Amino acid sequence: HAQYMAKNNSAACLSSVMGFHHVNVNGSLYPAKAKSRRHMWEVKPSEMANNTLNPIRAIVDGMKITPNPEKPMIALSIGDPTVFGNLPTDETVLQALKDSIDSQKYNGYAPSVGYLKSRQVVANFYSCPEAPLDAEDVILTSGCSQAIDLCISVLCNPGDNILVPCPGFSLYKTLAVSMGIEVKLYNLLPEKSWEVDLQHLESLIDERTSCLIVTNPSNPCGSVFTKEHLQQILKVASKHCLPILADEIYSDMVFPGCSCPSMASLSSSVPILSCGGLAKRWLVPGWRMGWILIHDRNDIFGPEIRQGLVKLSQRILGACSIVQGALEGIFNNTPPSFYNSTISFLKSNSEICFNELSTVPGLNPVMPSGAMYLMVGIDMDHFPEFKNDVDFTERLVIDQSVFCLPASAFEYPNFFRIVVTVPEEMMVEACVRIREFCQRYYRPRSCELDQ
Amino acid sequence: HAQYMAKNNSAACLSSVMGFHHVNVNGSLYPAKAKSRRHMWEVKPSEMANNTLNPIRAIVDGMKITPNPEKPMIALSIGDPTVFGNLPTDETVLQALKDSIDSQKYNGYAPSVGYLKSRQVVANFYSCPEAPLDAEDVILTSGCSQAIDLCISVLCNPGDNILVPCPGFSLYKTLAVSMGIEVKLYNLLPEKSWEVDLQHLESLIDERTSCLIVTNPSNPCGSVFTKEHLQQILKVASKHCLPILADEIYSDMVFPGCSCPSMASLSSSVPILSCGGLAKRWLVPGWRMGWILIHDRNDIFGPEIRQGLVKLSQRILGACSIVQGALEGIFNNTPPSFYNSTISFLKSNSEICFNELSTVPGLNPVMPSGAMYLMVGIDMDHFPEFKNDVDFTERLVIDQSVFCLPASAFEYPNFFRIVVTVPEEMMVEACVRIREFCQRYYRPRSCELDQ
Repeated sequence: HAQYMAKNNSAACLSSVMGFHHVNVNGSLYPAKAKSRRHMWEVKPSEMANNTLNPIRAIVDGMKITPNPEKPMIALSIGDPTVFGNLPTDETVLQALKDSIDSQKYNGYAPSVGYLKSRQVVANFYSCPEAPLDAEDVILTSGCSQAIDLCISVLCNPGDNILVPCPGFSLYKTLAVSMGIEVKLYNLLPEKSWEVDLQHLESLIDERTSCLIVTNPSNPCGSVFTKEHLQQILKVASKHCLPILADEIYSDMVFPGCSCPSMASLSSSVPILSCGGLAKRWLVPGWRMGWILIHDRNDIFGPEIRQGLVKLSQRILGACSIVQGALEGIFNNTPPSFYNSTISFLKSNSEICFNELSTVPGLNPVMPSGAMYLMVGIDMDHFPEFKNDVDFTERLVIDQSVFCLPASAFEYPNFFRIVVTVPEEMMVEACVRIREFCQRYYRPRSCELDQ
Repeated sequence: HAQYMAKNNSAACLSSVMGFHHVNVNGSLYPAKAKSRRHMWEVKPSEMANNTLNPIRAIVDGMKITPNPEKPMIALSIGDPTVFGNLPTDETVLQALKDSIDSQKYNGYAPSVGYLKSRQVVANFYSCPEAPLDAEDVILTSGCSQAIDLCISVLCNPGDNILVPCPGFSLYKTLAVSMGIEVKLYNLLPEKSWEVDLQHLESLIDERTSCLIVTNPSNPCGSVFTKEHLQQILKVASKHCLPILADEIYSDMVFPGCSCPSMASLSSSVPILSCGGLAKRWLVPGWRMGWILIHDRNDIFGPEIRQGLVKLSQRILGACSIVQGALEGIFNNTPPSFYNSTISFLKSNSEICFNELSTVPGLNPVMPSGAMYLMVGIDMDHFPEFKNDVDFTERLVIDQSVFCLPASAFEYPNFFRIVVTVPEEMMVEACVRIREFCQRYYRPRSCELDQ
C-alpha cells in the first residue's frame, strides 16, 4: 500500500522532467553544494570483505612449503577426490550432462530454487518413510557451500551465535563471522571416535544461539555417528528448541558395515535443514551442484523460513541449469558398482594409512568410518623440536616432501589431517616417509610444554 | 601472532579431554544452568531474509494475470532470450561444453576466482589498448548476479549508499537493501533516449556514497550511451572520487551503426569494476557464467580491493568448472555470424514494435539501440480507467492476453517494458492487440490526475 503511495507521488513528479522535480522524486533534501563529498580517492574494502577469513589459507599461506628436491611431492592435503585422476566420475554421469546439453532445454534461466522437475528428482532420491520429501522441500544451490550459506543466512542475525563442531569444516566460521554471527565451537572427542562432547555442547547454548551445525560424516575426522549418538544430539537440540543445520554432504560415503541415517530420519520434532550435493558421492565437486532438504514435519520453520530461503535464493540464483537438467539421469543411471568401488577404495586406503601410522612412535591416528579423511594426533612432547602441528607438518614437507594439513586449520592443534583419496602406492610411500620422519625427531623422554 | 597464542593455549588444554577444560578452551564462562535458554520453538527468518525483496515478484505476484481465453497468451515480460526457442545458442558453444566434459579435466574444484587459464581467456577477449586486461584482472563468478553481488559487497558497508539508475535493473536494490546499504535512484531521461540526468546524479552524492552503478546498454531501456555521455558520467565520478560498477552484461548486444565503448576504455583515472557474462551474447543465461573485470590503472583499488574480492569469492566459490573449461572454445569458435544474426533480429523486432506503437494514441515508445528491451510510456491521463501502469498492464492481459512488465517494477511508473526477443509474428500480433486495447480505452480529453 505504501508502495502505491510512492508510485503515485513519483508518477506525478515524473510528468515533469525538470531537475528540481527529479531531485524531489528521489528524496534528495538539500542542494548539491551543501553536501560534503570526497575530494581525494579513498576506496577501502568493506568490513564484510575484511571479515571473510579462510583459516586454511591463513595457515597454509603462512607455511614454508618447500619440498625436498630429492623426493617427489606427495600432497595429502587437498580435499578434492579428482586431483590424482584415480577416482574419475562414472561414464553415465558425464553422459547425463551431455544429454542435458543436447536436449537444448536447459540454456535459459531456471527458477531461483531450481527446476521443479530437478527438485522432484532430488526429493525422490533422498525421501524415506521416516523423513519424506517432496519437490517443495528441496532448494537447489550452487554447490553445498551456497546451501550452507543460505541456511545460516536465513536462521541467524548479526549478534546471534551458532554451534560448530571442533575440529570442523572451516567454511561455517568463514561465512558466519563475515555476517557478524558469533561461532561457538563444541568439542568432538577423539578418544570416542570423535563423538560430540554433549555436556560441552549443552553448556554453550544461550538465548542467542540460533543454529546447531552437525557434520556427519565428518570433515576433517572421517567419523560417522551412530544412530544412538545422533539421537543424543537431537535430544539436546529438542530440549533447547534449536534448529539443526545438518551438513550431510558425505552421507553417501560411509564404509561397508557402518550405517549413516540422516538426522531428519531420527526426529520429527526438531526442524532440520540438510545440506548436500553431487560433489562427493559423484566425485564432481567442480560442478557446483548442491541442495537444501527442508525437514519440518512439526511445522516449526513454517512458511516463513521456506519463504526466506526462496527470497535469499533470488540474490544470485543457483546451480548451472545444464547440471540441473542432468540430475535425473545422474540419479537414475549411475550403477551401484560405481559407489561401491569408490567406498571400498577409500576404506582400503584408510586401513593402509591407519595400520601403518598406528605403529609409528608419537603418532595417534584415528580410524575413520567414512568420508575421505583421517586425523592423526601428534604427541608434541615427544617432538620437542616442533612448536606445534604447523611446525611439524611444515618440516614434514621440507624433509620428506609429504604435505598434510595441520589441524590448526580446523581449530584443533596438534593433529594433522590426511586425505585418503590418493592412489594406493602414493599412500603407502607417504606412510613410509612419515614413519622415517617421526623416527628421526621422536624423543622418548617427554619435555616440558613450553620448550 | 595472536593466532599462535590462541593455538598454544588450546594446545595446552587439549592435552586434557575433561569437560571442564573443553569449556575453557571454547570460552564458555559461566556454568550451563546459569544460562537462559528457549523453552519453546521460535524460529524466525533473519532480517537479511526479510529484507531481500524482489520488486518484480512483489508487483507481478500482486497482479491478476488471467488471460483472455479466446486469445493465446503472448508474454512480452520475460527477460530470457531462450524461452521461445527462436534464439538458440550456437552449435559451437554446445560443442565447447561437451569438449570440456570429455576432457575430464574440469570435474574438480576450480580456484574460487576461477581457473587461471579461463580467466586469461576472458582477459584476452575483453582487453583493448585503452583498457588492457590480464588474467589477474578477471574474477569468474556464478552468473553476472554474483559478479554484481561481490562488487557491491566489497565496496559498500551498511549505512553507505549507492547510486542506481532509474529506471533500472531491480537486482541492485535487492542486493543492497538486504545488506543494509541505502539505494539512491538517479534519473534517466526518456526524452534524451534515457541519458543520465547528470545534475540529479551529482545532487545525490554525499560522503557515504561508495559506488556509482552504470548499466550500459540498459535493462529495461535498451538504450546505449554515446561515448560523450559516458565521458560526462566519468567526469562526475572522477570529480567526487566515486568508483564505478559498470554493469556491461549487454555490452555485446548493440544494434549496427551504434558503438558501445566500455566505460573502462574511456577513463584511466576512475577505478571501474565491469560485470559481464555469457548470458546474453551467447544466449545461455542458465549456465551461470559471469565475471568481474577489474580496471584500476591508477591503482586506486590497489591490492586491498582485489584481495577483498578474492576473499569474498571464497564464501561459496564460483561458476561451474565445466563451463569454465568451455570458455576458450566458446570465445574462439563462435562465428561472428551468430552474433550478427542475433543482433539484427533484435533490431528488426525493435523497429517493428516501435513503428507500430508510435502510431498508437496514448503510447510513447522509446526506440532502443541495444539489449533486448523497449520501454513504452503511457499517457495515463488519456486512460482514466486505469490508476497506473500496473492497472493498465493487468487489464491488457485480461482483455488481450498480452503481458508486459509494468515499469513500476523498475521504480518507474507509467511505462511498461517490452521484451523484443519473441518470434516476429508474435511481436506483430502483440502490437495489433495493444493497439486495439488502447483504442478501446483511450479518452481524447485529458482528465485530472486524481480521478
